[in-house]
Amino acid sequence: MRGYAADKDGYLKRLKRIEGQVRGLQRMVEEDRYCIDILTQVAAATKALHSVALELLEDHLGTCVAQATAAGGVEASGKVKEASDAIARLLHS
Amino acid sequence: MRGYAADKDGYLKRLKRIEGQVRGLQRMVEEDRYCIDILTQVAAATKALHSVALELLEDHLGTCVAQATAAGGVEASGKVKEASDAIARLLHS
Amino acid sequence: MRGYAADKDGYLKRLKRIEGQVRGLQRMVEEDRYCIDILTQVAAATKALHSVALELLEDHLGTCVAQATAAGGVEASGKVKEASDAIARLLHS
Amino acid sequence: MRGYAADKDGYLKRLKRIEGQVRGLQRMVEEDRYCIDILTQVAAATKALHSVALELLEDHLGTCVAQATAAGGVEASGKVKEASDAIARLLHS
Repeated sequence: MRGYAADKDGYLKRLKRIEGQVRGLQRMVEEDRYCIDILTQVAAATKALHSVALELLEDHLGTCVAQATAAGGVEASGKVKEASDAIARLLHS
Repeated sequence: MRGYAADKDGYLKRLKRIEGQVRGLQRMVEEDRYCIDILTQVAAATKALHSVALELLEDHLGTCVAQATAAGGVEASGKVKEASDAIARLLHS
Repeated sequence: MRGYAADKDGYLKRLKRIEGQVRGLQRMVEEDRYCIDILTQVAAATKALHSVALELLEDHLGTCVAQATAAGGVEASGKVKEASDAIARLLHS
Repeated sequence: MRGYAADKDGYLKRLKRIEGQVRGLQRMVEEDRYCIDILTQVAAATKALHSVALELLEDHLGTCVAQATAAGGVEASGKVKEASDAIARLLHS
């Protein structure tokens, strides 16, 4: 069971909305819209993706990582390292 | 004429690829894929959006903002402020 | 015991180096150095701060959060939420 | 003349305050303060550095880059590229 299993529909709804935002960006480029307005929409899409990521991460820390750290040992520190690396990728993306 | 007009096809192609990445994220959630793998894909989509934004910004600075600053006056500082605000939104998104 | 207790000296050394970078920035402004060179140094200092934060976070997840999730209950989800909020603040800073 | 020349004192004051924040971080580590409180302070210092960077960038775009784009040619596109690269470094730091 994944940490996000309890709210799969919520995640899918948010990702569909982000897909719509990215399609909206294509429409803006096709319609020669003002660069700054496009950049504002890019920032909105990025913010929405980050928000999904932060919630996925919270679910993951509260389930998968929690189980591993309860078990302890190499598995535990491996899961913690893996989560930290994922956070680093988000921060530098 | 927009700063990005010379490469509209390139931008549309990149945005379509990002749309595909976001649809890929929905598939991953539906298939109960591992959280960390989903987070890696979120970071990839965010990075691709940032890359589009940085190129749009460069085009915008080299055309629209350049014309305004050549003309000078209130228009010039307004365009520079507007671009800085767009950069701030990206940075904090 | 804090998660970072085992490597306090390492953290202090890194923070002293960052303090040096920020003093270096003041010197650059005083010496009228080129804006882009100053911005490059700002990015270096920010990257160093992020790197400290990511390591603190990893230590925190592997100790404090791990103990709370092993105990379970409200305390556990509170610690996970608190860590997620800290990650969000870094991401949007 | 640098773009930030008109407000050197303002920049120096802000950088001194950031230096104080980084020294505060060292004190927090020495005093075994709670990880999350340290992370909150790291985010505050990063935000302050980003704020300095955004203002430096705005000054730079309105002076140095504006003069280059008014002159046109290779110099102009070089300065625009250089500013974009600086923005990218901040975004990925």
